[in-house]
Amino acid sequence: MRVLGVDPGLTRCGVGVVEGVAGRPLTMLGVGVVRTPADAELSHRLLAVEEGIEQWLDEHRPEFVAVERVFSQHNVRTVMGTAQASAVAMLCAARRGIPVALHTPSEVKAAVTGTGRADKAQVGAMVTRLLRLAAPPRPADAADALALAICHIWRAPAQNRLQQAVARHTLNATKGRTA
Amino acid sequence: MRVLGVDPGLTRCGVGVVEGVAGRPLTMLGVGVVRTPADAELSHRLLAVEEGIEQWLDEHRPEFVAVERVFSQHNVRTVMGTAQASAVAMLCAARRGIPVALHTPSEVKAAVTGTGRADKAQVGAMVTRLLRLAAPPRPADAADALALAICHIWRAPAQNRLQQAVARHTLNATKGRTA
Repeated sequence: MRVLGVDPGLTRCGVGVVEGVAGRPLTMLGVGVVRTPADAELSHRLLAVEEGIEQWLDEHRPEFVAVERVFSQHNVRTVMGTAQASAVAMLCAARRGIPVALHTPSEVKAAVTGTGRADKAQVGAMVTRLLRLAAPPRPADAADALALAICHIWRAPAQNRLQQAVARHTLNATKGRTA
Repeated sequence: MRVLGVDPGLTRCGVGVVEGVAGRPLTMLGVGVVRTPADAELSHRLLAVEEGIEQWLDEHRPEFVAVERVFSQHNVRTVMGTAQASAVAMLCAARRGIPVALHTPSEVKAAVTGTGRADKAQVGAMVTRLLRLAAPPRPADAADALALAICHIWRAPAQNRLQQAVARHTLNATKGRTA
């Protein structure tokens, strides 16, 4: 199973691709950050996020996209941009018929460290160990994107197969409607 | 000047096209609502909003897209969906090099009624009068989309021309980078 994890953001959108199945060693296929200039217009920043995500989808052809679920109780100044960047990532996946899963930050932390209250350093350390990397991925957004992908691989593999079938069916139905 | 106004939302996304210039009678070219089923997956709802907005852009070829600026202090349950729907509308416009303007609800109310604290009925009544319609557009989201377009036509025409030039320039620069 190949998963693109996306830690959404306008200034830094973390992206990471992990391949593997639950119970076996995992492989990192790529990690990075899509950046957009803070002084650009919002619509152009969203366009730049789209171009970045499209490149990652083109290059790695993931079977699932796992996106961090955004909560509105977070920092009010940044949450709107985060929600909008996550919308772009979900849209790019949906357009290709790739199923999208949302995981909360505590689900991700609990999956990779055993506790939902782990800090950034702990998540980075576990991602490094689980993917057998030489050093923790930088910046933290990149490590978080890998943690999201790992979380997705480890949670409910049966559910993933079902979701994939549903996404394919929905895309075909959508195509039929607009054709 | 032809403007597509978008009152963003996942369940009902209001859209309205108005043509005219400040100081002259305005013409409504179209009004409607893009709806997505509340029980569909978020990524598929965003895809449906994209398809809807694309159809309106194809049909009316607006020179500007005016989107309601979303504030996080609004209803916490719906604000994330509103922010995400607005991201899709902005992205569709930016992809075509159409400049996007954001107007706050009070700017829109003040523009069409003279007060930033006008209620829905007052906005609907003024939209009906300004566009010489037989009856107020329904639902309210459709009327709000028209009010956004009117607000945009009336605010800073000189600024609009500048923004249009910048948007064209940015799109060309973006195209050059990804080519």
